[in-house]
Amino acid sequence: MFAGPIQRVIDELSRLPGVGQKSAQRLAFHLLMTEEADAGRLAQAILDMKAQVHSCERCFNVAAGTECAICLDPKRDHTVVCVVERPQDIVVIERTQEFKGRYHVLGGALSPITGIGASQLHIAELLERVPAEGIEEVIVATNPTVEGDTTAMYLARELGDLSVRVTRLASGLPVGGDLDYADEITLGRALAGRREIH
Amino acid sequence: MFAGPIQRVIDELSRLPGVGQKSAQRLAFHLLMTEEADAGRLAQAILDMKAQVHSCERCFNVAAGTECAICLDPKRDHTVVCVVERPQDIVVIERTQEFKGRYHVLGGALSPITGIGASQLHIAELLERVPAEGIEEVIVATNPTVEGDTTAMYLARELGDLSVRVTRLASGLPVGGDLDYADEITLGRALAGRREIH
Repeated sequence: MFAGPIQRVIDELSRLPGVGQKSAQRLAFHLLMTEEADAGRLAQAILDMKAQVHSCERCFNVAAGTECAICLDPKRDHTVVCVVERPQDIVVIERTQEFKGRYHVLGGALSPITGIGASQLHIAELLERVPAEGIEEVIVATNPTVEGDTTAMYLARELGDLSVRVTRLASGLPVGGDLDYADEITLGRALAGRREIH
Repeated sequence: MFAGPIQRVIDELSRLPGVGQKSAQRLAFHLLMTEEADAGRLAQAILDMKAQVHSCERCFNVAAGTECAICLDPKRDHTVVCVVERPQDIVVIERTQEFKGRYHVLGGALSPITGIGASQLHIAELLERVPAEGIEEVIVATNPTVEGDTTAMYLARELGDLSVRVTRLASGLPVGGDLDYADEITLGRALAGRREIH
């Protein structure tokens, strides 16, 4: 229905997650109506990102070269590794400024429903890293979902043969939240994980 | 927080309408994770669209050359022109296959609140087209909103001096809708615009 070049942009945009046909139309016409440089900048930024950003050979975080900035940083503690599902999870953890170790990106979580098994994740590479790098603690920071929990259990079992401590992020009440609004599973975990305060 | 090339894509994406910081992050990482060609195709499609799609010199619809396909079509009725706010409105009207005339895109609607006056819209060009092209009817198909209605009233007044019929799309109940769900203003317009059925 739309002229060819516009339809192609609509088609490509509607392949993005959470962008439907209508949103794709609105975005395409917005790009068309804005000053030439704006849409050009977006296109160029995408091309640059694809050309310049790679996967870290060690931890599978995003990286400018063969290894990411965190793996290359000599000040990071090499004996602790935090396992996350996706590279963007690293950004969230870095913001807390509480973690000084390195990371390992699995590339997702185990999910029998969508058919994601251990071989599709970077689990074998993690099992190699632990003895090779003398890692003493693996903090499993997969999402607190069924898939994330399953992955954590699987990793704990696989790592059980190696002399390494395996921990999981605490589940519980979000800080600043209200007890009234907590779901029963979260509240149950908060109870089970209660800590002495004196 | 993100590496430079990723942050630039996030920044550019978050300038798009309806795309917040979080969605922009999700989209950027999606583009990063998909096969190289996918993100490249999007970038290339945007560049091609900006290079190939222009504004029709006559009606301001999107056009591959100096005039759009509709203006160039000798089978369209040159005596009727349908006035719309944006080029994408033309697609919607064309889908009805009820209109055989030509179009005129205003580029928006009058809005004192956001400071859009008559000089920012292609109104002067419409006033020139009517006598120059021997237009006999102007169908005002601006949106049924305060801004669209204001624009329609303004056009009716400006076109009043010329010997041309000015009409407005009917407001009323959407076909297939339920009376229960109609708001009172739409229902009021449907009553005021009622038609004899025998």
